[in-house]
Amino acid sequence: MNRPKIVVLGAGYGGLMTVTRLQKQLGNNDADIVLVNKNDYHYETTWLHEASAGTLHHDRVRYDISNVINPGKVNFIQKTVTKIEPEAKKVILEDEELSYDYLVVALGAAPETFGIQGLDKYAFSIVNVNAARQIREHIEYQFATYKVEGEKDPERLTIVVGGAGFTGIEFLGELGNRIPELCKEYDIDQKLVKIICVEAAPSALPGFDPELVQYAMANLQKKGVEFRIGTAIKEATPEGIIVAKGEDETEEIKAQTVVWAAGVRGNPIIEESGFENMRGRVKVDPYLRAPGYEDIFIIGDCALIINEEINRPFPPTAQISMQQGELLASNLAKLISGNSDLQSFSFDNKGTVCSLGDDDAIGVVFGKKVTGTKASFMKKMIDNRALLMIGGVPLTMKKGKFNVFK
Amino acid sequence: MNRPKIVVLGAGYGGLMTVTRLQKQLGNNDADIVLVNKNDYHYETTWLHEASAGTLHHDRVRYDISNVINPGKVNFIQKTVTKIEPEAKKVILEDEELSYDYLVVALGAAPETFGIQGLDKYAFSIVNVNAARQIREHIEYQFATYKVEGEKDPERLTIVVGGAGFTGIEFLGELGNRIPELCKEYDIDQKLVKIICVEAAPSALPGFDPELVQYAMANLQKKGVEFRIGTAIKEATPEGIIVAKGEDETEEIKAQTVVWAAGVRGNPIIEESGFENMRGRVKVDPYLRAPGYEDIFIIGDCALIINEEINRPFPPTAQISMQQGELLASNLAKLISGNSDLQSFSFDNKGTVCSLGDDDAIGVVFGKKVTGTKASFMKKMIDNRALLMIGGVPLTMKKGKFNVFK
Repeated sequence: MNRPKIVVLGAGYGGLMTVTRLQKQLGNNDADIVLVNKNDYHYETTWLHEASAGTLHHDRVRYDISNVINPGKVNFIQKTVTKIEPEAKKVILEDEELSYDYLVVALGAAPETFGIQGLDKYAFSIVNVNAARQIREHIEYQFATYKVEGEKDPERLTIVVGGAGFTGIEFLGELGNRIPELCKEYDIDQKLVKIICVEAAPSALPGFDPELVQYAMANLQKKGVEFRIGTAIKEATPEGIIVAKGEDETEEIKAQTVVWAAGVRGNPIIEESGFENMRGRVKVDPYLRAPGYEDIFIIGDCALIINEEINRPFPPTAQISMQQGELLASNLAKLISGNSDLQSFSFDNKGTVCSLGDDDAIGVVFGKKVTGTKASFMKKMIDNRALLMIGGVPLTMKKGKFNVFK
Repeated sequence: MNRPKIVVLGAGYGGLMTVTRLQKQLGNNDADIVLVNKNDYHYETTWLHEASAGTLHHDRVRYDISNVINPGKVNFIQKTVTKIEPEAKKVILEDEELSYDYLVVALGAAPETFGIQGLDKYAFSIVNVNAARQIREHIEYQFATYKVEGEKDPERLTIVVGGAGFTGIEFLGELGNRIPELCKEYDIDQKLVKIICVEAAPSALPGFDPELVQYAMANLQKKGVEFRIGTAIKEATPEGIIVAKGEDETEEIKAQTVVWAAGVRGNPIIEESGFENMRGRVKVDPYLRAPGYEDIFIIGDCALIINEEINRPFPPTAQISMQQGELLASNLAKLISGNSDLQSFSFDNKGTVCSLGDDDAIGVVFGKKVTGTKASFMKKMIDNRALLMIGGVPLTMKKGKFNVFK
């Protein structure tokens, strides 16, 4: 058995794209492909805000990994990665070690709290399926409890969203649709509910076209969202958050629900394994290799690639992760067939659409601005495209979003 | 306007039965009928254990009062009663006073905690729609949170039910069906869930046929319920409960969910209004009148009537409340027409069925013991009968339980 062994860590967009392409491009005896993932399912990170708000059931945002891998070609191990040892060419799992000839690190992101005290303890983060359903249940429990209590506590009906970036805005859009449903479910007057978005930057959705940002904010405000832009969170407490007010002053915003959606970083395993990194992200070479290693590829949220046009890193997205996975699979197939003429990665930005709930969105697609139902339709097509690329038509039919004619 | 004024307090089984019968028996100009209730809906108290477990949505266990009253004959006031002043012939509402010629007190029950410390603070009670949906959400939130936490807390998956009486057993039956669903929803191994029923009396379901009690306990045990019979709860704490163990010892049972289902008493307004009472229940005369008052009738959970056969009070049930309402409406119609030949109340026990979940039950109906699907069918028919008697066929079609062919 001297077939090369490819170990892929993580079954997110990047990891699954790599594996599903590899199993198509390689024959049965070309290589041993091993996929390692903590859960036996893949989840759509870009849909988690819906599961968190409760507008889409969490079973709709995940599918079994077994649905998309070919067990004749890929050996799936459901375990947690604890460390990578690049010099020893080993991956340490919870109770097992794996050797590899080629390693693909696609371990995804972790929330970045920028050292703000209390956020890790008192705020929720939309990081995975478990967290999403806890947020959903937490909000529901607050509404249920508000209704029971003799002395009413308005903070139970106050939701603070930290961050008006992509995730924050998309989550607010879902909340805007969900709150009327919750008020009906728990017999609560909707006027009592407060949704406050706190953003430290001078604008919501930095990097987006200002006209689109204005559209998004106006529509979210109509749905009851209050924006506190240019306002930094200083601390999270059991009662809510403390924000900066002017130069030296602070203000307390009381809320039983605080969701931190203002930033992600690379997986901590990157740091623990000794790779040179910035906030858990490794500046990879044009072939997506970790500096200094010919046999380690890093893709997705743990990879850092500079957008030369603006001299800043590309933001971590599903789109870039999948493109990386696609290229990497093709390069790995070449390497295994003895062809070392690898192709370098360049990001082909097809556009970005930011959802504002089930029925509204903003975006730039193929260079054109779109809003409203048209943008919302394109967003659903983008969501379906990820399913199509990884799982083909059957998976898309099963898990796709086809409620597009609203 | 010298039409007599009948004021009915409470839209539970007794109050609604009185009003709906009165509006049939009296002409438009015979009397002013006023119904006072805190909510604009009636709820099926005997179905609340299902809404609490999450096996039936709370909107299925309630209906709008407007569905069953004739606005031409009944004036409905949605307010909370704070006190009755029998000498002044007045009812004090939150911000209004009502005078009456005849008063019907049908204010329902409150949980009886027998002075056990902490129960009012740390345990839930299945008392109304608001409480039921909070219990449902609390349990779901515990499951969701268990799954998120790195250090697992098994107490999040432990549910203590205080009391193996009618409500306790029926709630356990629903939990037995609900837990497998919750485990699936939150990816939790069912073996980790503990349901513990603690009962101070020497037997579950006191008063029930021992053979049926044995059947019930065996089937609930199969569904994962652990019984601690003959065990008294000494205290409820934020961590769970303290129970007696032998003569002097105590034992702690840790649980994040404690539901107290071991007893009810009459409404505290009975005491506050100065009626002679035992735990909020008034020993009424054969015509359901409060002692010393010709114009005040008390029915339902606030009324105490002795079962001469065993020299103990009849337990408060929907069945007895509705029979009282029926008789009272007929007597009030007589009084208003100048006929003082009232009929005295006697309880016609048609039987009792105790549900063990959607598909199982035990009971004695018309003197015959029944178990299993047959008993479950009869239970659903009993539930439908309450709808039929108060709201007729349309309400029964809308809210009835017809999933009987399992």
